[in-house]
Amino acid sequence: MALIVQKYGGTSVGTVERIQAVAEKIRKCRENGDSVVVVVSAMSGETNRLIDMAAQIDPHGPAREMDVLVSTGEQVTIALLSIALEKIGAPARSYTGSQIRILTDDAYSKARILNIDDSRVRSDLDAGRVVVVAGFQGVDAEGNITTLGRGGSDTTAVAMAAALHADECQIFTDVDGVYTTDPRVEPKARRLDRITFEEMLEMASLGSKILQIRSVEFAGKYNVPLRVLSSFTEGGGTLITFEDDEMEEAMISGIAFNRDEAKLTIQGVPDRPGIAFEILGPIGQANIEVDMIVQNVGDNDTTDFTFTVHRNEYAKALEILRQIAAKVGARKVVGDDKIVKISLVGVGMRSHAGIAAAMFEALAKEGVNIQMISTSEIKISVVVAEKYLELVVRALHEAFGLDREPAMG
Amino acid sequence: MALIVQKYGGTSVGTVERIQAVAEKIRKCRENGDSVVVVVSAMSGETNRLIDMAAQIDPHGPAREMDVLVSTGEQVTIALLSIALEKIGAPARSYTGSQIRILTDDAYSKARILNIDDSRVRSDLDAGRVVVVAGFQGVDAEGNITTLGRGGSDTTAVAMAAALHADECQIFTDVDGVYTTDPRVEPKARRLDRITFEEMLEMASLGSKILQIRSVEFAGKYNVPLRVLSSFTEGGGTLITFEDDEMEEAMISGIAFNRDEAKLTIQGVPDRPGIAFEILGPIGQANIEVDMIVQNVGDNDTTDFTFTVHRNEYAKALEILRQIAAKVGARKVVGDDKIVKISLVGVGMRSHAGIAAAMFEALAKEGVNIQMISTSEIKISVVVAEKYLELVVRALHEAFGLDREPAMG
Repeated sequence: MALIVQKYGGTSVGTVERIQAVAEKIRKCRENGDSVVVVVSAMSGETNRLIDMAAQIDPHGPAREMDVLVSTGEQVTIALLSIALEKIGAPARSYTGSQIRILTDDAYSKARILNIDDSRVRSDLDAGRVVVVAGFQGVDAEGNITTLGRGGSDTTAVAMAAALHADECQIFTDVDGVYTTDPRVEPKARRLDRITFEEMLEMASLGSKILQIRSVEFAGKYNVPLRVLSSFTEGGGTLITFEDDEMEEAMISGIAFNRDEAKLTIQGVPDRPGIAFEILGPIGQANIEVDMIVQNVGDNDTTDFTFTVHRNEYAKALEILRQIAAKVGARKVVGDDKIVKISLVGVGMRSHAGIAAAMFEALAKEGVNIQMISTSEIKISVVVAEKYLELVVRALHEAFGLDREPAMG
Repeated sequence: MALIVQKYGGTSVGTVERIQAVAEKIRKCRENGDSVVVVVSAMSGETNRLIDMAAQIDPHGPAREMDVLVSTGEQVTIALLSIALEKIGAPARSYTGSQIRILTDDAYSKARILNIDDSRVRSDLDAGRVVVVAGFQGVDAEGNITTLGRGGSDTTAVAMAAALHADECQIFTDVDGVYTTDPRVEPKARRLDRITFEEMLEMASLGSKILQIRSVEFAGKYNVPLRVLSSFTEGGGTLITFEDDEMEEAMISGIAFNRDEAKLTIQGVPDRPGIAFEILGPIGQANIEVDMIVQNVGDNDTTDFTFTVHRNEYAKALEILRQIAAKVGARKVVGDDKIVKISLVGVGMRSHAGIAAAMFEALAKEGVNIQMISTSEIKISVVVAEKYLELVVRALHEAFGLDREPAMG
């Protein structure tokens, strides 16, 4: 008998009918002998309805009261789901974040969980009840209602699983797992049975927006096995787990990409200490986030800097960079917002040499020019012209055999 | 500087615009130097919307979860009102029933308040804040959310006023006070500046449905001065207060009436001990509530019983009474569902003789036959044919000078 924490997002509980379907799923899980704690979001649309009412009064209402307001969304869902569970013979009890004492700091609208009191949950589970918990919300030390910010329900589920030492934390979404790459780009993309936390973090931050990064980090920190499944179809989903020997087989887990970037280069910069800060300091001060940074050694004691920013910030960054160029005596500023970043992700890279070479070979075969390269321990990213996106993703998917089930050791 | 507890019902906070109007009213009150605690209901329609969703799953959902569900209604209102207050420069803080620890018993959906922790409210008031409290809800000793049942927000307001020893508890409704009688029946009906608790109880139970009886009883028990005012118009409303010397002037405060009754008589009943129970026992067992009961001594050791029931129960009561008549050997059963009960209410009756005589005289003048009479310490009720309702109410209103402001002593 396992202890499972399940999380259902807003779409999964978006109507009364869907709430009833979720109750049915939970009942089946219970009949398999598992104990279940369920974390739910507000019904889809509900949070926006509440925020819209507040915005009619004040688009920037006090954060404390906004949290009191929006936290009602999940409270409605826990009650309706508990009613649905009891109706089909599964004893259930609902709890708000305050009731179960999901203790957070007092940073309204973006609070962080500090502690969870698991005593009530344990006694309900011992009594054979399903425990239904409002996601996304908590309570600070003074008893004020707090919310965890966007994606907070995932974090609640992971935190509950950690506090209860649950066997698995299952995140039900509208996709049925993590894929080797976006199936809309490469129809041969395959659902992964397993992926490591580190790979998931790289995949998530690169644009595979299935789980909130914060909840994945949280799960990693507390060693909570996380599984992504579909609310609407059957299937085992993808287990996000700790790196283990078994995992070493798969060199590459997936291909992530990001179309939202633009590239800027400042050429012929005097190569002296502090120059990197002189260039990137003003960009940071303008609140422009920089992603990749590459510095090449040039000739005549000068150097070239290239970095990428979000495409929306391209024009602003270009203007700032031109001012910097004049100030530091750089030769030239160029940029391109028709680029895409493509990354190979896999913990297997660590122990397998030649991944980068194989990647560059695959691109060379297709005649694709690589504009930037950046590597981390489990990721190799390249920047290429946007028009090559599909070509490169499919070539890499083929080259690394991602459409084939890996042999298990 | 006074401490005022104000309560606004669902209609008063039914839209964002109305919530903003309420905020404006509170701001003015604060500018007069008063400290304000506000108790609010759910926006009108919201509670029904929530109950309808639950009913789609289960029309008789578990009471605990129904309370979790419907309590979100007031929580939305406290947040929106606090946002509106802050927006117009009145510092405010909202509290749910759980947060402020409105401790109740665990009778879900009809819980009773046991205690209120006033420490947070006091420190907020001391800091110059408006305290906005969710009506209708509380928390039991185990931390479960409870609701107080219909009209519960009035009770919350009175309980808050009692706990804080407030100077006044103001109930804002869609009427501007308590009238000498229903203005739709007697256009000369006058708004009372004051009425005693006892009179209010008699008026309320007789059909002047302005305040929930429970909240009036509660206010009387804890000596909380209660004022009924309109949310939509200006005016001092009606103060419901303890009987004091000043009040003795007004012999009669008002005329209440009830069209929902029917009359049943069992004639020629053997006059022996226990006969009243033999007749009324089976009626009570059938869950039929009996209002007035009159017993006349008849002739030949027999007696007549007459009583009134709700008009909806008339046919059922008549059938039961016929069976009883056969059993006890009564002569005859008659009934009439075209009657109305009209009551004079006033604490002044206690110290003024001849009120009943004056009442009967007024009816005699109009040629109205009195079918039943029943009296209590501060009330005289008569049953007459329904067609005389308007005639009798206007005659009594005139006879007791209710259209004139009483002289204050």
